[in-house]
Amino acid sequence: MSQSKPIAIVDARVLTLAPDGHTPGKPRRGGMLAELGVVDRGWVLVRGGRIDAIGHGAAPGFDPDTEVVDAAGRVVMPAFVDCHTHACFVGDRNDEFEARLAGASYLEILAAGGGIMSTVRSIRNASVSTLVEALLLRLEQTARLGTGTIEVKSGYGLDTASELKMLDAISIVAARVPQTVVPTFLGAHALDADRADPADGIEEIIDRTLPAAAEAHPGIACDAYCEENAWSLEDCHRLFKAASACGCPIRVHTDQFNSLGMTRLAIEMGARSVDHLEATTSQDVERLARSETIGVLLPNSGFCLDDRYAPGRALVDAGAAIAVASNFNPGSAQSPSLPFAMALACRKCLLTPAESIVAATFNAACVLGLQHEVGSIEVGKRADLLLLDTADERALAVEIAGPGPIGVMLEGRWHRTGWDR
Amino acid sequence: MSQSKPIAIVDARVLTLAPDGHTPGKPRRGGMLAELGVVDRGWVLVRGGRIDAIGHGAAPGFDPDTEVVDAAGRVVMPAFVDCHTHACFVGDRNDEFEARLAGASYLEILAAGGGIMSTVRSIRNASVSTLVEALLLRLEQTARLGTGTIEVKSGYGLDTASELKMLDAISIVAARVPQTVVPTFLGAHALDADRADPADGIEEIIDRTLPAAAEAHPGIACDAYCEENAWSLEDCHRLFKAASACGCPIRVHTDQFNSLGMTRLAIEMGARSVDHLEATTSQDVERLARSETIGVLLPNSGFCLDDRYAPGRALVDAGAAIAVASNFNPGSAQSPSLPFAMALACRKCLLTPAESIVAATFNAACVLGLQHEVGSIEVGKRADLLLLDTADERALAVEIAGPGPIGVMLEGRWHRTGWDR
Repeated sequence: MSQSKPIAIVDARVLTLAPDGHTPGKPRRGGMLAELGVVDRGWVLVRGGRIDAIGHGAAPGFDPDTEVVDAAGRVVMPAFVDCHTHACFVGDRNDEFEARLAGASYLEILAAGGGIMSTVRSIRNASVSTLVEALLLRLEQTARLGTGTIEVKSGYGLDTASELKMLDAISIVAARVPQTVVPTFLGAHALDADRADPADGIEEIIDRTLPAAAEAHPGIACDAYCEENAWSLEDCHRLFKAASACGCPIRVHTDQFNSLGMTRLAIEMGARSVDHLEATTSQDVERLARSETIGVLLPNSGFCLDDRYAPGRALVDAGAAIAVASNFNPGSAQSPSLPFAMALACRKCLLTPAESIVAATFNAACVLGLQHEVGSIEVGKRADLLLLDTADERALAVEIAGPGPIGVMLEGRWHRTGWDR
Repeated sequence: MSQSKPIAIVDARVLTLAPDGHTPGKPRRGGMLAELGVVDRGWVLVRGGRIDAIGHGAAPGFDPDTEVVDAAGRVVMPAFVDCHTHACFVGDRNDEFEARLAGASYLEILAAGGGIMSTVRSIRNASVSTLVEALLLRLEQTARLGTGTIEVKSGYGLDTASELKMLDAISIVAARVPQTVVPTFLGAHALDADRADPADGIEEIIDRTLPAAAEAHPGIACDAYCEENAWSLEDCHRLFKAASACGCPIRVHTDQFNSLGMTRLAIEMGARSVDHLEATTSQDVERLARSETIGVLLPNSGFCLDDRYAPGRALVDAGAAIAVASNFNPGSAQSPSLPFAMALACRKCLLTPAESIVAATFNAACVLGLQHEVGSIEVGKRADLLLLDTADERALAVEIAGPGPIGVMLEGRWHRTGWDR
């Protein structure tokens, strides 16, 4: 990467996401959540895959080998950070989708072999290279839509070998793509319906899979899906105590359908994030606002399932730190698009466009512990940049399902430059 | 175009959209609406911008100068036909969007200069070249998402000069892009709130603008927006009688919010399409099913406005011919994406994925009178083709807000080939 030519983007509306000139180590909350750190008529110089300099006004003379791109007033901003996905999957669930449209119930679909266990069986039967190819294809979709950093969870294995196979595949892909890929261990994604006693699966995940994952991937975050008919509050508690002992940060899917007390417990345990929150109580909104834990909105699931959405506006108004993510998965969020999640976060969770931008860049980087590396435009950070086709970044929230930014730069190289022709 | 090299796409799942080997002149309805004319392990040869041959099984020997593309089992299908858009606009309505999120009412936004008249004022103040540049940008977005043929309406002028200016801009763009662009005259889009007496505007559109548009663009379709506080049933009736006398096919926006009797009248007048239909009565569903008029679903508007959708399933089950379109516009359908409309047509109007594909290709071509030119893969037709990144075309309906097909061919040339890298 260090041999690539310097690139200067000039005459741009630069959203640095660093309103005070440098980013804090902590996520933005309250009124700060809408501050984009705009440099109007600014320029950004990129060298060796990193942000080399930022300025406003007329561009200075650059080294003669610099590629100069005239943004003509358009927006330049940090690439998106998608902090919650299940993009590592194989096998589609198109039959299930059609059956649902035709009126099949959730239970009928489960009985026909559908639902999450259908993906689990596909993963168990797949080779690592099959998982790698499938994930590469999906990450390319997300890159075209502007995602520079992406978290990918395991969780379709539900046994030690299959969970480790998923984490292997994610690591192999991480080394092959220009995006920053962050694995998360989600052995506690579901109860394993293919075991005679699903409780055996819980013990295996806590006692064997978690330690093995933490050994192979030191510092990997440990996630769980806490819900009725999934992991209970008590089992999550045991898992997270073990995870903390292994040095794994905690994240949790909580309050998607039912409020079981997991959000409060996660905050008390110092979780890095609580994700979903569609059914969160007003008391837990207040608790979250007083905590260091970040609330992650996943509105693509509300769109794909039942039009229920997290109380985004209430969370921001209470002073909570929030992020927005795509939740890309084959069952309940069949979309690679973080911009679509941002648009829904505005239309359905009543964020402002500016808040949705911070939530999908800097604050999302905080969820992944990467806030000193990505999520804002500052000297020394990775040169992951987007060039939009507009001078008004609110278009990101207004427009729906577009083809992505005209320019996507990953680690200082154009991954996508202008239109194809 | 005729000098371009022949291209053969081999080992493809070819959706010809011509299940009996040739297309009829009429749109598909009932059970036929789901027939995709699949040629599994098939090939398509393109020469001089046209479909030259189609076959199944192993590809034959092609001329040595032929570019051979191995689809490796992926889907090849006709490019999308978007038969209802308002893509010719300038000025964004982002302030209005933010005000609405913050709770401003429709009337407050109108009082602040928002709503359709804000776009009308921008259009009236814009030069033809400004309109051309804006439309080129938007058509490029639609092309990346797979739209090969696109209808674009006037209707933000509301006076003779401004309406003709819009049609001029659309015609200029039509000659510059590789897509097929079809203009529609929509002088009857709204009441002109900037006139002392809006009734004057109605007389001008019927008596002067329509004849001028029909003279400059012979055979152009005449459209109207029939709704409370917009064009009345009676005024639409007068307009359409005049349009028929000018040789203009009739289309109409009807039943979006209120059922005023326009659908029945349009059918009686032999309208080519009735568009929107969110508030259509069951009697009008039956009338439409017995008619030659095509019902056009515009679910992106339901998504952007109020989650109200046309009764797609009931229309198909009754035997009506239907199409799906994006309705791309700056106020109530801020999306260039026909695939997004198809996904909504399945999720919200309960079409099957196959029905949504026919509705967005062949049947949409029928709405535009172009069914012998585009909308299916048959020898002699325009070579407007899509190469999907999947072997299962249902992904089009399942996946949401993706970055578009990996290959888009327009008139026999690749407009977009594979990923950028």
